[in-house]
Amino acid sequence: MNTVLGKDDRCSVARSLEVLGEKWTLLIVRETFLGRSRFSEIQSSLGIAKDVLTNRLAGLVEHGVLERRTYREEGARERYEYALTPVGHDLAHVMAALSQWGDRYRPTEAGPSRVYIEVATGEPVSVGYTSADGRALSAAEVTVVPGPGA
Amino acid sequence: MNTVLGKDDRCSVARSLEVLGEKWTLLIVRETFLGRSRFSEIQSSLGIAKDVLTNRLAGLVEHGVLERRTYREEGARERYEYALTPVGHDLAHVMAALSQWGDRYRPTEAGPSRVYIEVATGEPVSVGYTSADGRALSAAEVTVVPGPGA
Repeated sequence: MNTVLGKDDRCSVARSLEVLGEKWTLLIVRETFLGRSRFSEIQSSLGIAKDVLTNRLAGLVEHGVLERRTYREEGARERYEYALTPVGHDLAHVMAALSQWGDRYRPTEAGPSRVYIEVATGEPVSVGYTSADGRALSAAEVTVVPGPGA
Repeated sequence: MNTVLGKDDRCSVARSLEVLGEKWTLLIVRETFLGRSRFSEIQSSLGIAKDVLTNRLAGLVEHGVLERRTYREEGARERYEYALTPVGHDLAHVMAALSQWGDRYRPTEAGPSRVYIEVATGEPVSVGYTSADGRALSAAEVTVVPGPGA
């Protein structure tokens, strides 16, 4: 079903978007970051059609972003819930980068509904680059060069 | 045409995806980061249908990510080229975060076609969090809390 878009199938952006690029997918990932795990919770929180949600969840499970578990409430039949795997948790920077760009360029008068802060200080944090030895780098200190798969 | 998906229209992730979330859009942005500016270059580099590319470019111009300029080659009619605005350039962290995730979890045997390095050292860099006073922070040092628009 999924194929890498564009002609460069070694491009890691394109390969990520093969998993994440369909409509709703990143918002479903957002819901799981917010702790919503049950199909019914995610469905009502997003207002997404059930068949679309079923399809997207299956794709995210297939690609190892979410894992599916069963649960059963008293007197009800078994149902599914979904949790981020370590692979899914590692999308945090993608979510944060999208959030930061939206904060800056797509603001609302009310301000953002969620903000990223440093636990120790409560101060807002930004998404940036980190050097191999752990220094924060500005965009001007970073460049993109052809890799081994170029 | 565009509407914020999901029920939280103050979510900056959803608001970013309103601009960026359609199929092909982020790959068109990638092409402009790689220095491809002309309609014909982007079209042949991606192998995208012309009407889809026209539509996506118009959306990116409308939202201030790209600016459209005219150019004319010797003996030819006027044509369009597209360049990243400062708003578009600020998508670098989104591209880098998607690239990093793809490098890790969607690798090819050949390795990635592009890599992010520190200009001064040539060492690979990662996408991370930066504190308000410029320190690199680990994911464990950052949390997401309700913002003013919650």
